[in-house]
Amino acid sequence: MSDHAATIGRFWAATEARDWDGLAEVLADDLVYEMEQTRERVRGKPAFVRFFSEFPGDWHLVVRRIIADADGGVSTLDFTVGDEHMVGITFFTFDVDGRITLLEDVWPEPYERPAGRAHLTELV
Amino acid sequence: MSDHAATIGRFWAATEARDWDGLAEVLADDLVYEMEQTRERVRGKPAFVRFFSEFPGDWHLVVRRIIADADGGVSTLDFTVGDEHMVGITFFTFDVDGRITLLEDVWPEPYERPAGRAHLTELV
Repeated sequence: MSDHAATIGRFWAATEARDWDGLAEVLADDLVYEMEQTRERVRGKPAFVRFFSEFPGDWHLVVRRIIADADGGVSTLDFTVGDEHMVGITFFTFDVDGRITLLEDVWPEPYERPAGRAHLTELV
Repeated sequence: MSDHAATIGRFWAATEARDWDGLAEVLADDLVYEMEQTRERVRGKPAFVRFFSEFPGDWHLVVRRIIADADGGVSTLDFTVGDEHMVGITFFTFDVDGRITLLEDVWPEPYERPAGRAHLTELV
Protein backbone atom coordinates (compact mmCIF):
# COMPACT_ATOMS: atom_id res chain seq x y z
CA MET A 1 0.00 0.00 0.00
CA SER A 2 1.37 3.43 -0.92
CA ASP A 3 1.90 6.17 1.65
CA HIS A 4 -1.05 8.06 0.22
CA ALA A 5 -3.31 5.03 0.45
CA ALA A 6 -2.20 4.51 4.06
CA THR A 7 -2.95 8.15 4.85
CA ILE A 8 -6.44 7.79 3.42
CA GLY A 9 -6.91 4.71 5.59
CA ARG A 10 -5.76 6.65 8.68
CA PHE A 11 -8.08 9.53 7.78
CA TRP A 12 -11.16 7.29 7.81
CA ALA A 13 -10.06 5.16 10.78
CA ALA A 14 -9.63 8.33 12.87
CA THR A 15 -13.00 9.64 11.68
CA GLU A 16 -14.83 6.42 12.54
CA ALA A 17 -13.10 6.42 15.98
CA ARG A 18 -14.07 10.10 16.57
CA ASP A 19 -10.32 10.58 17.14
CA TRP A 20 -10.27 14.25 16.09
CA ASP A 21 -6.66 14.79 17.18
CA GLY A 22 -5.60 11.81 15.12
CA LEU A 23 -7.58 13.11 12.19
CA ALA A 24 -5.90 16.51 12.45
CA GLU A 25 -2.46 14.86 12.17
CA VAL A 26 -3.01 13.86 8.53
CA LEU A 27 -4.40 17.26 7.48
CA ALA A 28 -2.53 20.27 6.10
CA ASP A 29 -3.24 23.46 8.04
CA ASP A 30 -4.67 25.15 4.94
CA LEU A 31 -6.82 22.18 3.97
CA VAL A 32 -9.77 22.94 1.71
CA TYR A 33 -12.85 20.69 1.61
CA GLU A 34 -15.25 21.04 -1.32
CA MET A 35 -18.62 19.43 -2.00
CA GLU A 36 -19.38 19.94 -5.68
CA GLN A 37 -23.01 18.81 -5.45
CA THR A 38 -23.99 21.47 -2.90
CA ARG A 39 -21.29 24.00 -3.90
CA GLU A 40 -20.14 24.06 -0.24
CA ARG A 41 -16.58 24.77 0.84
CA VAL A 42 -14.80 24.58 4.20
CA ARG A 43 -11.39 26.22 4.65
CA GLY A 44 -8.72 25.32 7.19
CA LYS A 45 -8.08 22.44 9.55
CA PRO A 46 -10.14 23.64 12.57
CA ALA A 47 -13.24 24.37 10.48
CA PHE A 48 -12.93 21.02 8.75
CA VAL A 49 -12.53 19.02 11.97
CA ARG A 50 -15.54 20.87 13.37
CA PHE A 51 -17.57 20.04 10.25
CA PHE A 52 -16.84 16.33 10.65
CA SER A 53 -17.10 16.20 14.45
CA GLU A 54 -20.51 17.90 14.47
CA PHE A 55 -22.06 15.54 11.95
CA PRO A 56 -25.31 14.51 13.64
CA GLY A 57 -26.55 11.02 14.41
CA ASP A 58 -24.99 7.67 15.24
CA TRP A 59 -23.11 7.41 11.94
CA HIS A 60 -20.62 4.74 10.93
CA LEU A 61 -18.46 4.22 7.89
CA VAL A 62 -16.81 1.24 6.23
CA VAL A 63 -14.14 1.82 3.59
CA ARG A 64 -14.97 -0.14 0.46
CA ARG A 65 -12.01 0.78 -1.75
CA ILE A 66 -8.93 3.02 -1.81
CA ILE A 67 -6.97 3.89 -4.96
CA ALA A 68 -3.94 6.16 -4.73
CA ASP A 69 -0.95 7.25 -6.77
CA ALA A 70 1.90 9.73 -6.37
CA ASP A 71 -0.41 12.74 -6.76
CA GLY A 72 -3.62 11.85 -5.02
CA GLY A 73 -6.14 9.25 -4.13
CA VAL A 74 -9.78 8.31 -3.82
CA SER A 75 -11.87 6.30 -1.40
CA THR A 76 -15.33 4.78 -1.61
CA LEU A 77 -17.29 4.45 1.63
CA ASP A 78 -20.44 2.77 2.81
CA PHE A 79 -21.83 5.34 5.26
CA THR A 80 -24.74 4.57 7.53
CA VAL A 81 -26.80 6.68 9.92
CA GLY A 82 -29.23 4.33 11.64
CA ASP A 83 -31.14 2.60 8.82
CA GLU A 84 -30.04 5.09 6.15
CA HIS A 85 -27.27 3.99 3.80
CA MET A 86 -25.22 6.28 1.59
CA VAL A 87 -22.22 5.82 -0.65
CA GLY A 88 -19.51 8.48 -0.34
CA ILE A 89 -16.69 8.99 -2.83
CA THR A 90 -13.85 11.24 -1.66
CA PHE A 91 -10.92 12.54 -3.70
CA PHE A 92 -7.72 13.46 -1.85
CA THR A 93 -4.86 15.73 -2.91
CA PHE A 94 -1.65 15.78 -0.85
CA ASP A 95 1.08 18.33 -0.17
CA VAL A 96 4.78 17.48 -0.42
CA ASP A 97 4.79 16.34 3.22
CA GLY A 98 2.04 13.81 2.50
CA ARG A 99 -0.66 15.74 4.35
CA ILE A 100 -4.13 16.16 2.88
CA THR A 101 -4.50 19.59 1.31
CA LEU A 102 -7.69 19.18 -0.71
CA LEU A 103 -10.72 16.95 -0.12
CA GLU A 104 -13.57 16.71 -2.62
CA ASP A 105 -16.47 14.38 -2.02
CA VAL A 106 -19.70 13.31 -3.68
CA TRP A 107 -22.69 11.35 -2.44
CA PRO A 108 -24.40 9.76 -5.46
CA GLU A 109 -28.06 8.89 -4.87
CA PRO A 110 -30.13 6.14 -6.50
CA TYR A 111 -32.25 7.07 -9.53
CA GLU A 112 -34.43 5.26 -12.08
CA ARG A 113 -32.76 3.89 -15.19
CA PRO A 114 -33.74 5.72 -18.42
CA ALA A 115 -36.83 4.07 -19.91
CA GLY A 116 -35.52 4.10 -23.47
CA ARG A 117 -32.31 2.31 -22.49
CA ALA A 118 -33.83 -0.61 -20.58
CA HIS A 119 -33.17 -3.08 -23.43
CA LEU A 120 -29.42 -2.51 -23.03
CA THR A 121 -29.07 -3.52 -19.37
CA GLU A 122 -30.22 -6.01 -16.74
CA LEU A 123 -31.18 -5.05 -13.19
CA VAL A 124 -29.10 -6.45 -10.35
CA MET B 1 1.68 7.89 -15.94
CA SER B 2 1.09 4.25 -15.03
CA ASP B 3 -0.08 1.69 -17.56
CA HIS B 4 -3.49 1.62 -15.91
CA ALA B 5 -3.79 5.40 -16.05
CA ALA B 6 -2.82 5.31 -19.74
CA THR B 7 -5.45 2.64 -20.41
CA ILE B 8 -8.11 4.78 -18.75
CA GLY B 9 -7.01 7.67 -20.96
CA ARG B 10 -7.28 5.47 -24.06
CA PHE B 11 -10.71 4.26 -22.97
CA TRP B 12 -12.11 7.79 -22.83
CA ALA B 13 -10.24 9.07 -25.92
CA ALA B 14 -11.71 6.20 -27.96
CA THR B 15 -15.17 6.85 -26.54
CA GLU B 16 -15.08 10.58 -27.33
CA ALA B 17 -13.83 9.71 -30.87
CA ARG B 18 -16.63 7.12 -31.32
CA ASP B 19 -13.77 4.72 -32.13
CA TRP B 20 -15.61 1.58 -31.00
CA ASP B 21 -12.93 -0.78 -32.34
CA GLY B 22 -10.30 1.17 -30.41
CA LEU B 23 -12.47 1.05 -27.32
CA ALA B 24 -12.88 -2.72 -27.63
CA GLU B 25 -9.07 -3.15 -27.62
CA VAL B 26 -8.78 -2.09 -23.96
CA LEU B 27 -11.69 -4.25 -22.74
CA ALA B 28 -11.61 -7.82 -21.44
CA ASP B 29 -14.05 -10.11 -23.27
CA ASP B 30 -15.94 -10.82 -20.06
CA LEU B 31 -16.12 -7.17 -19.00
CA VAL B 32 -18.87 -6.30 -16.54
CA TYR B 33 -20.26 -2.77 -16.28
CA GLU B 34 -22.27 -1.84 -13.20
CA MET B 35 -24.20 1.31 -12.31
CA GLU B 36 -24.89 1.20 -8.58
CA GLN B 37 -27.38 4.10 -8.60
CA THR B 38 -29.79 2.41 -11.04
CA ARG B 39 -28.78 -1.18 -10.16
CA GLU B 40 -28.09 -1.76 -13.88
CA ARG B 41 -25.53 -4.23 -15.18
CA VAL B 42 -24.14 -4.97 -18.65
CA ARG B 43 -22.18 -8.17 -19.29
CA GLY B 44 -19.61 -8.77 -22.02
CA LYS B 45 -17.69 -6.63 -24.47
CA PRO B 46 -20.27 -6.52 -27.32
CA ALA B 47 -23.14 -5.51 -25.03
CA PHE B 48 -20.97 -2.88 -23.39
CA VAL B 49 -19.79 -1.32 -26.67
CA ARG B 50 -23.41 -1.28 -27.82
CA PHE B 51 -24.48 0.46 -24.60
CA PHE B 52 -21.92 3.21 -25.10
CA SER B 53 -22.32 3.53 -28.89
CA GLU B 54 -26.10 3.91 -28.67
CA PHE B 55 -25.98 6.67 -26.07
CA PRO B 56 -28.29 9.31 -27.57
CA GLY B 57 -27.52 12.94 -28.34
CA ASP B 58 -24.46 14.97 -29.31
CA TRP B 59 -22.53 14.12 -26.17
CA HIS B 60 -18.96 15.04 -25.37
CA LEU B 61 -16.65 14.28 -22.51
CA VAL B 62 -13.56 15.90 -21.01
CA VAL B 63 -11.44 13.94 -18.53
CA ARG B 64 -10.88 16.00 -15.40
CA ARG B 65 -8.72 13.60 -13.38
CA ILE B 66 -7.32 10.06 -13.46
CA ILE B 67 -5.91 8.22 -10.43
CA ALA B 68 -4.57 4.68 -10.83
CA ASP B 69 -2.50 2.13 -8.96
CA ALA B 70 -1.46 -1.47 -9.48
CA ASP B 71 -4.96 -2.80 -8.91
CA GLY B 72 -7.31 -0.30 -10.43
CA GLY B 73 -8.11 3.26 -11.22
CA VAL B 74 -10.72 5.99 -11.31
CA SER B 75 -11.57 8.85 -13.64
CA THR B 76 -13.67 11.97 -13.21
CA LEU B 77 -15.36 13.35 -16.33
CA ASP B 78 -17.21 16.46 -17.34
CA PHE B 79 -19.90 15.07 -19.62
CA THR B 80 -22.13 17.32 -21.71
CA VAL B 81 -25.14 16.65 -23.92
CA GLY B 82 -26.05 19.98 -25.49
CA ASP B 83 -26.54 22.42 -22.61
CA GLU B 84 -26.78 19.69 -19.98
CA HIS B 85 -23.69 19.09 -17.83
CA MET B 86 -23.04 16.02 -15.72
CA VAL B 87 -20.10 14.76 -13.70
CA GLY B 88 -19.24 11.09 -14.12
CA ILE B 89 -16.97 9.11 -11.83
CA THR B 90 -15.86 5.72 -13.13
CA PHE B 91 -13.94 3.02 -11.27
CA PHE B 92 -11.86 0.57 -13.29
CA THR B 93 -10.57 -2.88 -12.39
CA PHE B 94 -8.03 -4.60 -14.66
CA ASP B 95 -7.13 -8.19 -15.47
CA VAL B 96 -3.52 -9.46 -15.47
CA ASP B 97 -3.14 -8.42 -19.13
CA GLY B 98 -4.09 -4.83 -18.29
CA ARG B 99 -7.52 -5.01 -19.91
CA ILE B 100 -10.56 -3.54 -18.20
CA THR B 101 -12.60 -6.29 -16.55
CA LEU B 102 -14.94 -4.27 -14.33
CA LEU B 103 -16.35 -0.77 -14.77
CA GLU B 104 -18.47 0.92 -12.10
CA ASP B 105 -19.72 4.44 -12.54
CA VAL B 106 -21.77 7.01 -10.68
CA TRP B 107 -23.33 10.30 -11.76
CA PRO B 108 -23.72 12.50 -8.68
CA GLU B 109 -26.38 15.18 -9.04
CA PRO B 110 -26.56 18.59 -7.33
CA TYR B 111 -28.65 18.88 -4.15
CA GLU B 112 -29.34 21.52 -1.49
CA ARG B 113 -27.01 21.72 1.48
CA PRO B 114 -28.60 20.63 4.79
CA ALA B 115 -30.21 23.65 6.46
CA GLY B 116 -28.90 22.84 9.92
CA ARG B 117 -25.32 22.68 8.70
CA ALA B 118 -25.15 26.00 6.85
CA HIS B 119 -23.09 27.67 9.60
CA LEU B 120 -20.27 25.21 8.96
CA THR B 121 -19.67 25.95 5.27
CA GLU B 122 -19.48 28.72 2.67
CA LEU B 123 -21.05 28.49 -0.79
CA VAL B 124 -18.74 28.63 -3.80
